[in-house]
Amino acid sequence: MSSTSPLIHNFSAGPCILPPSVLQQASEAVSELDGSGLSLIEISHRSAAFVEVMEEARALVRSELSLPDHYEVLFLQGGASLGFLTAAMNFTPAGGSMDYAVTGTWAKKALKEAKKMGTAQALTSSEDTGFDRIPALPPTSGADAVHITTNNTIYGTQYAGDPSVDKPLVADMSSDIFSRPIDIERYACIYAGAQKNMGPAGTVLYIYDKRRAGQTGRDLPSYLDLTVHADKDSMFNTPPVFAVYTSMLTLRWLKSEGGVAAMQKRNAAKAACIYAEIDRNPLFQGYAQPDSRSVMNATFTAADDQHTPLFLEACTAAGINGLKGHRSIGGFRASMYNALPLSSVETLVEVMKEFERTHG
Amino acid sequence: MSSTSPLIHNFSAGPCILPPSVLQQASEAVSELDGSGLSLIEISHRSAAFVEVMEEARALVRSELSLPDHYEVLFLQGGASLGFLTAAMNFTPAGGSMDYAVTGTWAKKALKEAKKMGTAQALTSSEDTGFDRIPALPPTSGADAVHITTNNTIYGTQYAGDPSVDKPLVADMSSDIFSRPIDIERYACIYAGAQKNMGPAGTVLYIYDKRRAGQTGRDLPSYLDLTVHADKDSMFNTPPVFAVYTSMLTLRWLKSEGGVAAMQKRNAAKAACIYAEIDRNPLFQGYAQPDSRSVMNATFTAADDQHTPLFLEACTAAGINGLKGHRSIGGFRASMYNALPLSSVETLVEVMKEFERTHG
Repeated sequence: MSSTSPLIHNFSAGPCILPPSVLQQASEAVSELDGSGLSLIEISHRSAAFVEVMEEARALVRSELSLPDHYEVLFLQGGASLGFLTAAMNFTPAGGSMDYAVTGTWAKKALKEAKKMGTAQALTSSEDTGFDRIPALPPTSGADAVHITTNNTIYGTQYAGDPSVDKPLVADMSSDIFSRPIDIERYACIYAGAQKNMGPAGTVLYIYDKRRAGQTGRDLPSYLDLTVHADKDSMFNTPPVFAVYTSMLTLRWLKSEGGVAAMQKRNAAKAACIYAEIDRNPLFQGYAQPDSRSVMNATFTAADDQHTPLFLEACTAAGINGLKGHRSIGGFRASMYNALPLSSVETLVEVMKEFERTHG
Repeated sequence: MSSTSPLIHNFSAGPCILPPSVLQQASEAVSELDGSGLSLIEISHRSAAFVEVMEEARALVRSELSLPDHYEVLFLQGGASLGFLTAAMNFTPAGGSMDYAVTGTWAKKALKEAKKMGTAQALTSSEDTGFDRIPALPPTSGADAVHITTNNTIYGTQYAGDPSVDKPLVADMSSDIFSRPIDIERYACIYAGAQKNMGPAGTVLYIYDKRRAGQTGRDLPSYLDLTVHADKDSMFNTPPVFAVYTSMLTLRWLKSEGGVAAMQKRNAAKAACIYAEIDRNPLFQGYAQPDSRSVMNATFTAADDQHTPLFLEACTAAGINGLKGHRSIGGFRASMYNALPLSSVETLVEVMKEFERTHG
């Protein structure tokens, strides 16, 4: 963000706000990398300079999430949408199956892709109540793993922590990774598109238990085989250089700000601020059930439908960007990723209060 | 490149040199996009601003390559390495097969991935002569399409034009797309990683004949089905925003410089300059057979092995970057993509002449 521009409160659902210092450093690297005379994006990915970037990014993921040595870290491409397939391919044995907790649009898509390459079924679903809650996970019935979507951006729901189930978890954490500490040993695999808490669009993070990988008995295509990428230190082919570099910068920022424990506190404070106003203000109502509310994406609607465009206008006038809800449920969505300051949430709450005064 | 830095002649094989004006504009957009108060990488990919970028990038590919309306243009992820699989999946009918011209390392990899999802076989190969030439394409024998790698970066060989065969071509053009006009109607599909002539690493271009797509009878995973992406205007999932934007900038530059016809002339002049010196200078010898030489990557070796490190030192001293040959064949490789000026090639030739004077 340019310092000469008016302040914008960026509630975009993703790609989303990144720390201003990260944007500045990324911009400088595209012009010239560390005084090298060359841009970040015109050097070989095999150069010492970029190999160091990739290794630092992987090491920061490891340190910030306290990963044991038997977990691998990769930065690949294709987003979580290719991750749906890749995760199922690498962690469902030939002849085996995976159970899916269907908690929203992305979970449904994950299940759909898994069905294209093997056996996969819904273990539970909250579709009949409009995905307004996170259902408890029942015991599995013979599946090899359980797939969850830890945060559901569209509906504004989130698992309160790491679920306890009788099988290893495979998780799409695209929209809440690095928002809190995780109990990593519960997971066989975590995958996450970068463009929420980790960096810009263009790379997807895979974290997986090496002891559980390469065990499916399947002959996988190279790009979809996580062990192929691991054998090449996440450089099987040309990586998405800019996205990895900017993710590395964002992870440095995360560390400097106190890491995931500090983020958890900040995110809780932001969520408490917005949900308190949603519950208090008679002109608005929350979408997600209170015990399933997301700290990343608060979804709410206007009690009076005619207020919806008026409130969005009031937000725009206050410099609030990206508050329009997803077309699936309408209304409003306040995405409050790690880089969003509490002051932006406070501004939104002020606009809600003022809207009550003028339209209540 | 910063104007305060010493001039570097960037012969990197890829990621590689991009036009200085593109680097500057990309850097500015990461700081702030068009006075919006927001960075390019923190806005929604569904915003009007980014949808316009994607549409301009696709339109520029169409106009600069003179594509008829029945060709589709997509910007996806995974590089050509995932393209090997995607191209075979989308253009080999279930029960059909594809012939491969094996002209180098990347062609071998393409064939390997194709074999994982169906029937594929070598139509011809130059492996027995160290991939030092482009063999003529024999008639096919029942295959549905013929796969070629139009330019072979490691060995420095290239098809002189668009081959004439009795089946539609499927081509990996990662390292020479936009270097010359193409006879598009010969191709069912072209795919190309961006990081040579088109932009930074992180996106891969697909161009294909819509009339031939979706005809395989296969139930493809969504991300690997080109028709799924086409139905969503190349926004099936979050695109690699920075890579698409910077490719769009590079395509604008290409257009402003006179397009692919102008590039063809420039590239021919650069290639003539370096090959004349390789043939003249007794201290060096070309690797590729003269009639198969690439205008993008000139490969050569020192007549005396002991000269190899000395010549690389001389190049470094002259500000020449990225000249070391690929480990497969050693020696030197001068990559001369669109953005490399003739003056850089002239500098390299001067260093070769000086090396002859001091070491001949």
